Amino acid sequence: MTVKAILLIWCADKKGIVARVTNFIAQNGGNIENADQHIDEQTKTFFMRIEWSLDEFGLGREEINKSFSVIADEFSMRWELSFSDNISRIAIFVSRQTHCLYDLLFRYRQGRLKCEIPLIIGNHSDAASIASAFNIPFFESIKSPENKNEREVKELEILNEHKIDTIVLARYMQIFSPRIIAPYENRIINIHHSFLPAFIGSKPYEQASRRGVKIIGATSHYLTSELDSGPIIEQDIVRITHRDSLDDMRRRGEDLERIVLGRAVRLHLEKKILVYDNKTVIFE
Amino acid sequence: MTVKAILLIWCADKKGIVARVTNFIAQNGGNIENADQHIDEQTKTFFMRIEWSLDEFGLGREEINKSFSVIADEFSMRWELSFSDNISRIAIFVSRQTHCLYDLLFRYRQGRLKCEIPLIIGNHSDAASIASAFNIPFFESIKSPENKNEREVKELEILNEHKIDTIVLARYMQIFSPRIIAPYENRIINIHHSFLPAFIGSKPYEQASRRGVKIIGATSHYLTSELDSGPIIEQDIVRITHRDSLDDMRRRGEDLERIVLGRAVRLHLEKKILVYDNKTVIFE
Amino acid sequence: MTVKAILLIWCADKKGIVARVTNFIAQNGGNIENADQHIDEQTKTFFMRIEWSLDEFGLGREEINKSFSVIADEFSMRWELSFSDNISRIAIFVSRQTHCLYDLLFRYRQGRLKCEIPLIIGNHSDAASIASAFNIPFFESIKSPENKNEREVKELEILNEHKIDTIVLARYMQIFSPRIIAPYENRIINIHHSFLPAFIGSKPYEQASRRGVKIIGATSHYLTSELDSGPIIEQDIVRITHRDSLDDMRRRGEDLERIVLGRAVRLHLEKKILVYDNKTVIFE
Amino acid sequence: MTVKAILLIWCADKKGIVARVTNFIAQNGGNIENADQHIDEQTKTFFMRIEWSLDEFGLGREEINKSFSVIADEFSMRWELSFSDNISRIAIFVSRQTHCLYDLLFRYRQGRLKCEIPLIIGNHSDAASIASAFNIPFFESIKSPENKNEREVKELEILNEHKIDTIVLARYMQIFSPRIIAPYENRIINIHHSFLPAFIGSKPYEQASRRGVKIIGATSHYLTSELDSGPIIEQDIVRITHRDSLDDMRRRGEDLERIVLGRAVRLHLEKKILVYDNKTVIFE
Repeated sequence: MTVKAILLIWCADKKGIVARVTNFIAQNGGNIENADQHIDEQTKTFFMRIEWSLDEFGLGREEINKSFSVIADEFSMRWELSFSDNISRIAIFVSRQTHCLYDLLFRYRQGRLKCEIPLIIGNHSDAASIASAFNIPFFESIKSPENKNEREVKELEILNEHKIDTIVLARYMQIFSPRIIAPYENRIINIHHSFLPAFIGSKPYEQASRRGVKIIGATSHYLTSELDSGPIIEQDIVRITHRDSLDDMRRRGEDLERIVLGRAVRLHLEKKILVYDNKTVIFE
Repeated sequence: MTVKAILLIWCADKKGIVARVTNFIAQNGGNIENADQHIDEQTKTFFMRIEWSLDEFGLGREEINKSFSVIADEFSMRWELSFSDNISRIAIFVSRQTHCLYDLLFRYRQGRLKCEIPLIIGNHSDAASIASAFNIPFFESIKSPENKNEREVKELEILNEHKIDTIVLARYMQIFSPRIIAPYENRIINIHHSFLPAFIGSKPYEQASRRGVKIIGATSHYLTSELDSGPIIEQDIVRITHRDSLDDMRRRGEDLERIVLGRAVRLHLEKKILVYDNKTVIFE
Repeated sequence: MTVKAILLIWCADKKGIVARVTNFIAQNGGNIENADQHIDEQTKTFFMRIEWSLDEFGLGREEINKSFSVIADEFSMRWELSFSDNISRIAIFVSRQTHCLYDLLFRYRQGRLKCEIPLIIGNHSDAASIASAFNIPFFESIKSPENKNEREVKELEILNEHKIDTIVLARYMQIFSPRIIAPYENRIINIHHSFLPAFIGSKPYEQASRRGVKIIGATSHYLTSELDSGPIIEQDIVRITHRDSLDDMRRRGEDLERIVLGRAVRLHLEKKILVYDNKTVIFE
Repeated sequence: MTVKAILLIWCADKKGIVARVTNFIAQNGGNIENADQHIDEQTKTFFMRIEWSLDEFGLGREEINKSFSVIADEFSMRWELSFSDNISRIAIFVSRQTHCLYDLLFRYRQGRLKCEIPLIIGNHSDAASIASAFNIPFFESIKSPENKNEREVKELEILNEHKIDTIVLARYMQIFSPRIIAPYENRIINIHHSFLPAFIGSKPYEQASRRGVKIIGATSHYLTSELDSGPIIEQDIVRITHRDSLDDMRRRGEDLERIVLGRAVRLHLEKKILVYDNKTVIFE
C-alpha cells in the first residue's frame, strides 16, 4: 500500500496559496491524489485538504514538516500534517446502552475503521462481556459525585498507558471535567440522540415526544466543556409518526445513532475534518 | 363524485368505541372507505378518523350530527364532522418573500388543493401583481406598531366578508394578536424556515450557520399565541455542507418551505389532522 | 404482559365489513387496541389489520378461529389470525458477508426482535465463530451445482427439526429451489443490495457505478422463485457522489442493508405485513 | 460583481497537473476562489474544476484560451473554459403537464437561475397562457408522425434565431431525432419521473405501482439518442405507502420533479457538471 501525506490548512485567504502548496508538492515529486479547497466568503477564510503519494516523494517525513513550515509561516497558516500509515489508537467509553459500542466493534472487526481499539472503559459492568468477546481489555470505572476526580485521574493514566489519541463516547452518560477534555481537544467524539441544537441535555426523546416533532435525529460532535455544544461532525434523521411510542423512538434512534457515530469516527480517522470556529469543514 | 362524511374522534379509551362507531355507520347503510384508529399508550387516549360514502346513507347531514352526538356523549368524545363537498375558503397572508405564495397558487390552479382562495392580504405591495396574475383579490394591509390594532380589526372584517375559514401564512412576517388567533384556532397554518424547535424566532439560517449544523429544515405548524410553538403538522429537511453560503441555505430552504407548506395545507383540507395536547395526529 | 390477537383480512370490498368484524370483537368483550383499514380503489379490495386484547375476551383461541371463520365465509375473506405470545422461530442463512447476520443477532440479543433464532445455516464456514459467540447452533452446508439437491433435502430436515417458521437470508448467495421456497411462501425474507427493480441480479454496485446513479438503495423482499422479484417489504436509499468508489458504495450499502433488513424482519414478526398480488400492504 | 473564469478539465492522471494549472493562474495574478479535484481510481482519470477572479488577472479572455491550450496539450487534457458573465440562453420545451415549466419560470423570475429564457416551445397550446403571463415568446409546434421532420427543422431555425445554447425539457413528451440532439450534446436537460434506471419509458408510476415499490423517484439527465439512458445529473426520492393511489404518486412526483429539475438546471448554469463516459462528475 502506498503511503500518503495528508495536509489540512486554514488561514486568511490570500492570492497564490493553492499554487504555492501544490508547487511544493510537485517540485518534490509528489502526485496529488486529492485536493479540496474552500473559501468561507463571510470571513474570507481559506480551507484546504490535500493528499499526495509519498512513493517517489523527495522529502522524508521530518523534512516535509520542516520545509512546509516555511510556507505556512509565509501565509500565517494553521495546519496539520499526517500520514496514512499512522494508525489512530481509540478508547471507547460506554455506560449501560451498548448498541453504539457493539456497532463500532463490528465495523472495526470488518476492517471498516482503520484504527486500533486497545481499550474500553465502562461506567457499568454491562459492557465487559462484549469487550471480552472482541478480545479488548475492559477497564471498569464506576463514577459517583464523590469519586469523580479520583476516577478521572486514573482514567487519564490508563489512556496514557495505552497511548490513546482519540476517545469515542458510545452513549457515555458521564460528564468529563476539563482534566480529560483539554488534552483531547477535537479528539473526543460524542453521539447525542437528538437533532442538535434541538433537545439539548438528557431525555431528548421525551422532549421530542412532548413537542410533537415529525422527525427525530442524531448528532455526532466533538466534545467541549459546554454541554452538547461542540463542533457538529455529522447528523442524520428519521421520520416518525404519532404511532411511534417512546420505545419506538428509542429503537429507531438506536439505528440512527449507530450510523451517525460510525460515519463520524470514519471521517475523523481519515483526517477529513477540520475544526474552525466551533464548526467543522468536512472534506468529502 | 360521491360525497363522503369524515369523522374525527378523540376521547379517553374505553371498550367498544370502534364497534359502536362502525355499527352506527353500517346500520344506516354507509360503506366505510377509510378507518384509522390509534391509542396513545401513555395517556390512554383514543383517536379515530373514519370516512364513509353518503351515497345510500339513511341519514341526512343534520341527522348524522344529531344521532352521532348521542354516541359521542356516551363515550365523552370530542369530535368533528365534515363532508367532502364542503370546500374550505382560504386567505393567504404574505410579506415580501413570495415563493410560498406562488407555490400555493400554482397548486391551487393545478387542482392539487381542494379549496377556494378568494383573498390575499399583503404586508407589502410586492404580492399584488402575483395576486392579479391569478385573478385573486389583493388587500394591502401594511402594518406598523402604531396601526397594528386598527389594521387587524380591518383584516378581521375582510376575512369575515370573504367567509374565510382557514388562514395560511405564506412567510408572513407580522405577529398576530389573539384578536385574530382566537377565532381561527387550529385554522391558521404557518411555515417556519427551520427544523423546530431548533432556531425559534427570526433569522434561523443565520443561527444554523453559526451553529454549524449539517441539516436544515422547515416546519409547518398551527399558529398559537406562543411564538413558533404551535402544534407541528409537517417537517422536512435537506442536507447542507460547509460549501453552502447563507444564500445557498436560503435557496435550498425555499424549496423545502414550499413542499412542507404544500403538504400541510393539503392535510388540513383533507381533514387528516387532529390536534390534541399541542400536538397533531396525522391520519395518512 | 397482555396477550393480543392479531387479525389480517383481505377480500373484495363490501358494505359492513368493518362493523361486522369490530362487533364480533366488542360483543365478546375485546378491547380493540389497533385498527387499520385500507381499500385499494383500483381493484376494490379491502384490507384490514386489527389487534385486540385477550384479557377479558370471552372466547378461547380455538373458538376465535371457529367463530370468525363464519364471518370470513360470509364475506369470502382471506385471513390470518395470530397471537402476540406466539414467538417465531427463525433460521438465518448466510454466505461470506456477515454484516447482516451480525446485525440481526445484535438486535435479537438487545431484545429488539421478538423471536427465537435457534439455527444459522452457512454456505461458508466464516459465520461459524459468530454463531458460536452468540451461542447459536451453526450448520455448515456448502453447496455446489452437484450437491445442491442433496444439500437442500438436508437443510429442510434441519429446518423441520428446529421447527423453523421463518427464514432470513442475510446476504445468502445461493438460489433456493422450489423445494424450500414453496413450504415457506411469504416466510423467506431476503435483502438485496440495490433499489429494486433497478440492478436486479448480482453486482448491483458495479451496475450502479456504470450507470452513474446519484443514489443507491437496498430492498428487503419475500423470496419467490423469480429472481429479485418477490413482494417488496422495505426499501431505503443513501446519496452517493462521483467521489464514492465501489468500495465506498459497498460500505455505505452495508449500513443500508442492515437497517432495511432489520426493519423488514421486525415488521414480519409483528404481523404488520399482508401480501397481496405480489405486493405488500404494511400496516404501520 | 467580479467576473470569474471557470475551467473544467479531464484527462489521464499524471504527476504535476494541479501544480501546473494553479501556477498558471497564480503567475498571472489570479486568485483561486474554488478548486475541486478528483481522480477516478478505476480508470486513473483526472477531473478538476477551478474558478478564479479576473479582477487583477494579467490575461484577457482570448489570451487565457491561447495560453492554457499549451498546458492542455502538454497533458492531453479535454477542457472547457467559461466566464461567469456569460449568461446562458435557455429554451424550454413542454407538452401538456406544466408543473415543471411553471416552477422553472418562477425560479427564473425570483433570480434563482442565472440565465435568459427567451423562448418556450410547446407541443400543446396549454402552456401559451403561462408563457404570456411571464412575457416569454411562445412557439406552438404540434407534432405528428407525419410532420415530425418538418417540425424539427422549423424548431432548429427558431432555436438558432434566439441564440439558444441550452434546452430544458420540462416534461416534454416527444422524442427528438439526432437532428436536434447532436448540435446540443450535453446541453439538453430532461426530467424523467422515475428513479432511473428503474421504470424506463412511459408510465413509470403505473410500473412502480405494479411492482409495489416503497419509494418513488425522479431523475434529471442529459438527453442522448438512447431513451432515458443519458448521463444522470440529479436524482431524488420520496417514500410512498400502499395508501398512495396512482394520483397520489403523481402529486408527490410533481414535487420531486420540480425540485430535481430545478437543481439540475442550476448545476448546469453554474458550470458544475462535467460529463464523462456517459456519467457526470458534479462539483458541488
